[in-house]
Amino acid sequence: MYHLLKQEGRARRGSFDTPHGNVQTPVFMNVGTQGAIKGALSASDLKTIDCQIELSNTYHLHVRPGDALIKAMGGLHRFMTWDAPILTDSGGFQIFSLAKLRKISEEGVQFNSHVDGRHIFMGPEESMRIQANLGSDIAMAFDECVKIPSPRDYVQRSCERTFRWLERCKWALKAFNEEEDAVNPGQMLFGINQGAVFHDLRIEHMKQIAELELPGYAIGGLAVGETHQEMYDTIEAVESYMPKDKPRYLMGVGTPGNIIEGVARGIDFFDCVMPARNGRHGHLFTWNGIINIKNEKYARDEQPIDPLCSCPVCRRYTRAYVRHLFKAEEMLAMRFAVTHNLFFYNSLLQRIRNSLDDGSFSAFRAKYSEILDKRI
Amino acid sequence: MYHLLKQEGRARRGSFDTPHGNVQTPVFMNVGTQGAIKGALSASDLKTIDCQIELSNTYHLHVRPGDALIKAMGGLHRFMTWDAPILTDSGGFQIFSLAKLRKISEEGVQFNSHVDGRHIFMGPEESMRIQANLGSDIAMAFDECVKIPSPRDYVQRSCERTFRWLERCKWALKAFNEEEDAVNPGQMLFGINQGAVFHDLRIEHMKQIAELELPGYAIGGLAVGETHQEMYDTIEAVESYMPKDKPRYLMGVGTPGNIIEGVARGIDFFDCVMPARNGRHGHLFTWNGIINIKNEKYARDEQPIDPLCSCPVCRRYTRAYVRHLFKAEEMLAMRFAVTHNLFFYNSLLQRIRNSLDDGSFSAFRAKYSEILDKRI
Repeated sequence: MYHLLKQEGRARRGSFDTPHGNVQTPVFMNVGTQGAIKGALSASDLKTIDCQIELSNTYHLHVRPGDALIKAMGGLHRFMTWDAPILTDSGGFQIFSLAKLRKISEEGVQFNSHVDGRHIFMGPEESMRIQANLGSDIAMAFDECVKIPSPRDYVQRSCERTFRWLERCKWALKAFNEEEDAVNPGQMLFGINQGAVFHDLRIEHMKQIAELELPGYAIGGLAVGETHQEMYDTIEAVESYMPKDKPRYLMGVGTPGNIIEGVARGIDFFDCVMPARNGRHGHLFTWNGIINIKNEKYARDEQPIDPLCSCPVCRRYTRAYVRHLFKAEEMLAMRFAVTHNLFFYNSLLQRIRNSLDDGSFSAFRAKYSEILDKRI
Repeated sequence: MYHLLKQEGRARRGSFDTPHGNVQTPVFMNVGTQGAIKGALSASDLKTIDCQIELSNTYHLHVRPGDALIKAMGGLHRFMTWDAPILTDSGGFQIFSLAKLRKISEEGVQFNSHVDGRHIFMGPEESMRIQANLGSDIAMAFDECVKIPSPRDYVQRSCERTFRWLERCKWALKAFNEEEDAVNPGQMLFGINQGAVFHDLRIEHMKQIAELELPGYAIGGLAVGETHQEMYDTIEAVESYMPKDKPRYLMGVGTPGNIIEGVARGIDFFDCVMPARNGRHGHLFTWNGIINIKNEKYARDEQPIDPLCSCPVCRRYTRAYVRHLFKAEEMLAMRFAVTHNLFFYNSLLQRIRNSLDDGSFSAFRAKYSEILDKRI
């Protein structure tokens, strides 16, 4: 259940209850694709870096170790020992970006696993079955994530099919939640808005899916190649058609600046692999912009990565040491970088929430929206 | 300063003071080659897994990031934020195993860096200079680690040169400790006994180096290809010529069984990359023998890696989850495996000390010397 606590312009300060506890929004979900955070972070580390909600990937976990195994182990929360909220994606995005030789029909998608090449069929019912087995708190609808650019008539037909798939998702998850051995009977379904950058298709699709009265709605199919401005324009076009009393999730976004701008346009949930992926390459977020820790100038720098940061790495280690770990290709470099970057994102969202609480979000946005994405 | 607290047969229970605190012996040193433990363990994790003393490698740190940089950062303790004892090896072993195109003379060894190929010269004074810059608590003598097998006359001449090098090490370190800006003026030198598996050469060399009255002595040049029995026989041959009032360190050894047998033959210090290296391949030590966590039979096993273990991994995670992390090639798999295996080694040594304290070491040895090395 979502409670809208406060607004500043279109920006929303909210609270969302799940079967595994409450989430304060806006929130950034920390990505643990295969039931583990890249960079050797453990479930207990997630608590240390103030993660509120973890996101895992249906497609990856279905392929390995298999959702039946995870159900037998008591569900994903128990398997990875994470007792707080989990959202699972639907597998759709991975099928359209990773899998090979896929064939789309009204029923669903036939494709080959990227791990062992075996044939897999996934449609709305299969995606819901897998997510029910994982027992996440929020299941995402099975949708087609169309490329940008795509022809308008293809996008239109895809949206219509994605809507029919959403109806099937809704009924399938309802049935699975009523099963006696349901892992998480309170599992919720979020619908996903598609339509590429065609504003009228986005709006039409959004109106349709809103009628299903789902617990939450996502904007999917963005951050896949369009410009930032096109993304912002699309959010602005569709936002007023999203239910006010439900959380809104902008999938796969983005930079700190993207997140601040997303919040300013009424978004509540975000996720992105960027803090982990950039971290692994030595690109570290700070409150003054992005540094490349491998740079020679940090070789004898005794400051923490970010003197303004209170993450476990910044509280103890110097830039000189972290740089050495990167140059020496020590695994600990990755762990430190991902720990710092995820903590940075989680504290960015905390500061956004604080600024909404005290009515200073627009000042916060003006101060940070651009500088946080800059390389210094 | 070493205190012999108790003996059982040749096995010794002792206590050794260093400038960064006391070490209870027998002890296993946890290897952090480049100033970091392989498998993404941090300095604070070392405390959690009950590490008493860390070992870093002179050669690797000289090549990258450079010992002058580490001295400028306040020494290795400060650089890696480890405030407990550190031992550094001399670089000799790495020069003879990693470096290319080496040329040995009375002065030292000319070789090419394995990282960038640049020419490096290292002799006793250079090794002591580097170790003084690192500021470890125990510096190891610069020696030649001869291959096994090697011709007797080569080994004899090498031992003679290694003795002359040891005398130079002693005077060099004394001079460096007296410098005004010494990183760790209380840094101690351990001599290294060589002689391959020629018992008479070992004994002769041991008698020579004992006369230098150093704070500790190591047996080097073993575990390099000879059989376990040859290694044990060599230790037995030389042990009674090692000073009783100084700690004895068996370099690069070994399996849990090797360590128990080493203790039984009067050894106090051990180090080995095995727990970290095996861990990274999924070979995990338990009190019933070695398991391969990647094995299919653990896919749905809800037990911890070792039900008898109280390490941070065994207290929280299942074999099924750890196996999944290995199969999915998650970095977290490595961290969990190394954490568990190092904790296992540290607790093995704790139990050895306990058994020496209460006079039950021979029973402990009979029970565990063989089974801990067996694959189950």
